[in-house]
Amino acid sequence: MSPALRLVDLDAAEPDPPAGDQRRLAWAYLSRVLEGPCPALSALIDSVGVVEAARAVRECALPESLRGPTELRRAIDCAERDLETIDRLGGRLVTPDDPEWPAWRMLGLAQLPSGRDRDGALPLALWVRGPLSLLETSERALAVVGARASTPYGDQVTADIVSDLAAQGWTIVSGAAYGIDARAHRAALAGGAPTVAVLACGVDRPYPAEHDRLLAEIADSGLVVSEYAPGVAARRYQFLARNRLIAGLADGVLVVEAGLRSGARNTVKWSRRLGRPALAVPGSVDSAASVGCHRMIRDGEALLVTRAEEVIDEAGPLRLSLPGAAGVVTGPEDSLNGGEATVFAALPKVGSRLPAELAAHADLPLPAVRAALAALELADLVGVGESGWYRVASKRSRRLGGGV
Amino acid sequence: MSPALRLVDLDAAEPDPPAGDQRRLAWAYLSRVLEGPCPALSALIDSVGVVEAARAVRECALPESLRGPTELRRAIDCAERDLETIDRLGGRLVTPDDPEWPAWRMLGLAQLPSGRDRDGALPLALWVRGPLSLLETSERALAVVGARASTPYGDQVTADIVSDLAAQGWTIVSGAAYGIDARAHRAALAGGAPTVAVLACGVDRPYPAEHDRLLAEIADSGLVVSEYAPGVAARRYQFLARNRLIAGLADGVLVVEAGLRSGARNTVKWSRRLGRPALAVPGSVDSAASVGCHRMIRDGEALLVTRAEEVIDEAGPLRLSLPGAAGVVTGPEDSLNGGEATVFAALPKVGSRLPAELAAHADLPLPAVRAALAALELADLVGVGESGWYRVASKRSRRLGGGV
Repeated sequence: MSPALRLVDLDAAEPDPPAGDQRRLAWAYLSRVLEGPCPALSALIDSVGVVEAARAVRECALPESLRGPTELRRAIDCAERDLETIDRLGGRLVTPDDPEWPAWRMLGLAQLPSGRDRDGALPLALWVRGPLSLLETSERALAVVGARASTPYGDQVTADIVSDLAAQGWTIVSGAAYGIDARAHRAALAGGAPTVAVLACGVDRPYPAEHDRLLAEIADSGLVVSEYAPGVAARRYQFLARNRLIAGLADGVLVVEAGLRSGARNTVKWSRRLGRPALAVPGSVDSAASVGCHRMIRDGEALLVTRAEEVIDEAGPLRLSLPGAAGVVTGPEDSLNGGEATVFAALPKVGSRLPAELAAHADLPLPAVRAALAALELADLVGVGESGWYRVASKRSRRLGGGV
Repeated sequence: MSPALRLVDLDAAEPDPPAGDQRRLAWAYLSRVLEGPCPALSALIDSVGVVEAARAVRECALPESLRGPTELRRAIDCAERDLETIDRLGGRLVTPDDPEWPAWRMLGLAQLPSGRDRDGALPLALWVRGPLSLLETSERALAVVGARASTPYGDQVTADIVSDLAAQGWTIVSGAAYGIDARAHRAALAGGAPTVAVLACGVDRPYPAEHDRLLAEIADSGLVVSEYAPGVAARRYQFLARNRLIAGLADGVLVVEAGLRSGARNTVKWSRRLGRPALAVPGSVDSAASVGCHRMIRDGEALLVTRAEEVIDEAGPLRLSLPGAAGVVTGPEDSLNGGEATVFAALPKVGSRLPAELAAHADLPLPAVRAALAALELADLVGVGESGWYRVASKRSRRLGGGV
């Protein structure tokens, strides 16, 4: 399955392809050289453009920080072949050049501090199979993940919650693994909802192999996504990087069942670092498959939820009360001006957003977002912490909400 | 069952009983007149003594605030008869005069703001049956409460957790109701642990009637407690006042199962107002008997626990690391002086205490407690909030605790 590799002949003179193709080839080349995110390379692309960045990598005309990460594979250029492969699969390479690049979703990832594993950053580009738009599917999306060794209870709860979310038009993002992941994808498919499988290997590789047919179905009606070029095999550390994309493409993460050392906890960590809610379903205290969920709830890493309605409560978009609307309790948020209301609406009910994310999401210039945030802060409607700006719970509306 | 009532003849001259008996008669008289807590009466007793306070009530020589609450029954004096009844039952009236009065436990109740229901305050005295000391049984006690309509799952979890707590010498406090309450008492009896049933009626009245035998067993080896005089029937509002005593006599409250409108939530509220931990056990999301637990965990009213070890973690007394002890990580709390260490040890791991509670518990003068708290605050070991002083979670020890 692995594509043939070709050593770059730096002296060979070939006719230049058109500019768009050239950029696409550059993204594809860099995607395979890096096999994962690289903040230093993203910075270089921002500064000199992707074609120049690719040339600099090929020629090793690089700052020290980029020599190490590109050393292993910079001589390998199978970009053309990779693009042919994804084309043959009916897929595509989605890059920041493309309108379907989910820019505001990705901003959170871009602004995470990059750790020593280089996994805290923006993906360079995404290899994608499936008929849906990556941008649109990540607009109102929940990641549903959990134990590979799920129980009938976990399977049933997954099916119930996902069916209800599907009926309300939510996209379900998961990792196509055994157990909860597969149940979540299947329930979404059954409910006719968009579903996105994010893989830790190339999108041409069914992983696990037994999910060959499931992945084909997802590619038929949803999306199969990976930051790894076609043919790349799944390696252990790639699963952790993959988990950050699952969290990154969704409004929040729901863990239905998880053992004590479940990978779901890693996805939850990413969601929290992105300022998005992490949710977990409780179960019997005797069930080993619920131990991880209970631990996360107990440690304050995840909020307890029991049904779709509660999930939407935490991860769903805000509905602002409009002044004068019938049956609506008016609060301080009703007297906001347009920009303030837009920015407030762009803040999740739980979790936080960075000003740049809000600007991208609300389609407002950054200074306008900052001005709105300052006004909202003065009105005690928002606060700011390490991971960004968040809504301040209104005691009044909570009380009214509880009592009315 | 109701004791015969006798109208007080204020002019009748009888020989005075000995001082101790006189005080006891005064407490018994006031207990029946008030049928519940009365902060204004407690204040009067503090200021003029119980005998004078009883005379003032009898003669209605009272400030305005006490006329209403005493009006209904001040002419009824069956104190002698009530004391004979409790004596015949092998019980006793425990008052603040008695060494077994759990003074430091009661301080929290005394310092709660009193609401319009007069249920936010210290009980005047407690009618008690059983061989144990009220002071000693409330030294290391957990309230275990929950759904009357418990499920086999809840019954089993109650039995498991209570057995483990019983094995470690914990007292189990509950309300002798159907379901979780009864299971908790029975598991404690089976485990040979002290168990305390707090009733909303006189201790001579088995309530519910079907628990006649259970209550007799508890009275044989544990304690049956009520703030209502013998013969008083259970009324609805008395259950709520009773719940505060269940919370007040324990280090924390554990709810094993609870429906959405369970009385357990009221007990949890009391525990939280007292600055003591409230804990709840999760269950299947399909079980109506777990809905209340899930709600309380979700709303941050209770902490999720799954087994006795976690209960002790939250509600148990602190074990201070001693410097130089083998295998013990030394932290800032190891360099405390004696008074500071004592006060720090008297603070619960979760929840808070008022300085007066700490003084009573640590047997230190109040100024010494305040000085120790100030030093502990400077060392970032404690903080202070609305409901009192609390331990500050040490990031270092959390990290070490998780990693070692």
